[in-house]
Amino acid sequence: MARDPQKPQFFRTLRVKNVQQVGVLAGVLGVVARHGASVGDIRTVHQSRTSMVRDIDLLVESLAELDAIVAELDEMPETTVLELRDEVLSAHLGGKIRMVPQMPIDTFADLGRVYTPGVGEVCRRIYEDPSLADNYTIIANTVAIISDGSAVLGLGNLGPLAAMPVLEGKAALLAHLVGVNAFPIALRSQDPDDIVAAAAAISPSFGVIQLEDIASPKCFEVERRVQEAVGVAAFHDDQHGTAAVVLAALINACRLAETVPQQLLIGQIGLGAAGFAIARSIMHYTGNPVLGADRSPEAIDRLVGSGGTASDIEEVCGKCDVVIATTGQPALIAPSMVRPGQIIFALSNPRPEIDATLAIEAGARIAEGGAAINNLLCYPGACRGLLDVGAKSAPQAVFRAASEAIVVATPEGQLLPNPLEKRAHSAVARAVARASVAAGIASRELDVDYFTEE
Amino acid sequence: MARDPQKPQFFRTLRVKNVQQVGVLAGVLGVVARHGASVGDIRTVHQSRTSMVRDIDLLVESLAELDAIVAELDEMPETTVLELRDEVLSAHLGGKIRMVPQMPIDTFADLGRVYTPGVGEVCRRIYEDPSLADNYTIIANTVAIISDGSAVLGLGNLGPLAAMPVLEGKAALLAHLVGVNAFPIALRSQDPDDIVAAAAAISPSFGVIQLEDIASPKCFEVERRVQEAVGVAAFHDDQHGTAAVVLAALINACRLAETVPQQLLIGQIGLGAAGFAIARSIMHYTGNPVLGADRSPEAIDRLVGSGGTASDIEEVCGKCDVVIATTGQPALIAPSMVRPGQIIFALSNPRPEIDATLAIEAGARIAEGGAAINNLLCYPGACRGLLDVGAKSAPQAVFRAASEAIVVATPEGQLLPNPLEKRAHSAVARAVARASVAAGIASRELDVDYFTEE
Repeated sequence: MARDPQKPQFFRTLRVKNVQQVGVLAGVLGVVARHGASVGDIRTVHQSRTSMVRDIDLLVESLAELDAIVAELDEMPETTVLELRDEVLSAHLGGKIRMVPQMPIDTFADLGRVYTPGVGEVCRRIYEDPSLADNYTIIANTVAIISDGSAVLGLGNLGPLAAMPVLEGKAALLAHLVGVNAFPIALRSQDPDDIVAAAAAISPSFGVIQLEDIASPKCFEVERRVQEAVGVAAFHDDQHGTAAVVLAALINACRLAETVPQQLLIGQIGLGAAGFAIARSIMHYTGNPVLGADRSPEAIDRLVGSGGTASDIEEVCGKCDVVIATTGQPALIAPSMVRPGQIIFALSNPRPEIDATLAIEAGARIAEGGAAINNLLCYPGACRGLLDVGAKSAPQAVFRAASEAIVVATPEGQLLPNPLEKRAHSAVARAVARASVAAGIASRELDVDYFTEE
Repeated sequence: MARDPQKPQFFRTLRVKNVQQVGVLAGVLGVVARHGASVGDIRTVHQSRTSMVRDIDLLVESLAELDAIVAELDEMPETTVLELRDEVLSAHLGGKIRMVPQMPIDTFADLGRVYTPGVGEVCRRIYEDPSLADNYTIIANTVAIISDGSAVLGLGNLGPLAAMPVLEGKAALLAHLVGVNAFPIALRSQDPDDIVAAAAAISPSFGVIQLEDIASPKCFEVERRVQEAVGVAAFHDDQHGTAAVVLAALINACRLAETVPQQLLIGQIGLGAAGFAIARSIMHYTGNPVLGADRSPEAIDRLVGSGGTASDIEEVCGKCDVVIATTGQPALIAPSMVRPGQIIFALSNPRPEIDATLAIEAGARIAEGGAAINNLLCYPGACRGLLDVGAKSAPQAVFRAASEAIVVATPEGQLLPNPLEKRAHSAVARAVARASVAAGIASRELDVDYFTEE
């Protein structure tokens, strides 16, 4: 079935009551599966001698599908649907982040310290020695997440307002995982000159500029020009964050397959922001060219200019040991195109170029999608590490270090670490900080404890 | 003594141990007073049968003054200085605000709700109906506090980095007092075109744009142009926030003096950002011209163009019933210039045009300085109210409403309410929201409860 790549999936929670009886839950999940929905968490809400109430998280392709599931469950004599909740929308109500003061402000003495007259001395000191801003302001721990909304997730050019939930989600995760302040900044204009000017204008308040959801090929020019214009590290996460995680997953997949990336012919289908960055980071790691396929001749030229080889989908699928796809086109790779033993990363979200299960059935050795190869594993630690050393830029070497740290943090037999475990993020932070120092882009010295603490 | 207006004061905490004996604390404070230092809070830290340990907050003009105090206290047989602490700097360490997630993100189900895949549906909905951004993002509760650092407090053009502690302090207070997210944004350029362009560029993320510490006369043009360029309320707090609080204090001072502003001849010395706005808001309230004095003919022309009368310091002091000064020039008004019965607000911080005590001694009926007439009383409630109704601009009428709400919230016999009491701020918020609706600039309807709750 051809699917519309512009359509989001729907995340809902079903509260189901059923009689206490072996096999009923399996029956419920059978109904869900028949309608093509994916099951997330299942939580027991209430339990008695005769009945069970459970919340079942579902991911569905359409709301009609959901209606059909509810109707069928209601017809079963053992089950009743008590509630259908939209926990996604309620989670987003009022936004996902909040600014709070770092200290109590309850007395005039508090006020005198954090505001006038006390603050005047702090301002004056920073004026006399601007490096003190690192100590007495939030700047050294604060990231701007800037987007023009021209490429929101895999959904396309939805504009700045619709990008805000993504930017806020990333900010919430930066706060939660690595304690970084991130301000979501959605820009009014999608013109490259305006994006660069805005990032440069607001840059004094930030220790890192993270560009987000900016369309290809504009993103390449914008990233380069923003980095030239600001005095701190700037990077486009859709490129480098994604590439760092994919490289780590590739190294780990090769280990599982008892080989190394240097021994394999690697092909990249789709050379947009993520695809081009993936190809480049793999070539940086292996020293070998990557075969690239894209409908845009300009994208192919860009790859060839970076040392890659022009190719097409048929050749990549037919010849490569590793096929990585980032096209946004669901079901682009037919099972018949899969070569036995291949490693296939079909990364488009929410709908991959080939379903991982189908790819394995067609003979792939390892196959994974974009939900498992999650770019959340790189940017929090990368921001933390870049901020900790006051990095002045974010070259390929720091993302390569992030990849290697992710590889080391991956449990035996897995493709990647759990992105919700903070340990992986602090390992990435340390690696990025160390690589920044080695690259000569650090503006602050860290004491040795930083690198030894676990 | 002529004092340097560019020099900040120093806020320090002295820990003093003394024998348990009547009169010793008075002796300690006598030493402090002789060296010209002001005393803030005094907290008992430890108490025994024979001794007392106290923390004494001091505000001094110079660190040499502080050294002299410590030396003299150490020479007294009953006292020992245990510690001299800099609580201002430690309060600012690492900055004064922090971004936090609004919800737990501990499981893959949480992640699916706040990030991918759940977030895609939220983005899509906002794309289809942009008004939903008010519900599902932080925008409607978020203020940008934007400065170019060209007029930081009374300290002058210290630049954007040195403005950050002020912007963060205001953000901390907005979070604490009215639950608003505020992002401090320090701009790299001080050019009006760049300031306007930057504010416009980042405006989609914000429900209100608060301009801060921008020098006069540039601030007038910048404020007007920013308001024209953005779709939400924009205001320069140093103008309108200050003016609203001064007008409230003036109305209250008149009550204490059993008169009304309409009956008095009012003069304004210093027609910069605050001074011009004060004169204008008073003329808007009384319908009578204000006499204005300033060294800049351009500033006088601006006042005359708004209905005021050109004057000079001697005439204002010699003829007016009310003298308001915002010049940044300490001791500009000699006690001999004070006319008996005058109301004098000498507002420059930290050092006023005339010390309030001296003014009273010279015959003033009421005299106050900038520490007491605190602009913190307006902007939190103003932002809260403007956000609550989605105001599209911030005209004079909303600040007039804020003044009137502050007057109502002032306890009997006082000039202003306590700025740390949240009640005053919610009264201002309601008044500003109501005035916005009346002025036809509200974009959201509030239910009637909003205006009746206390």
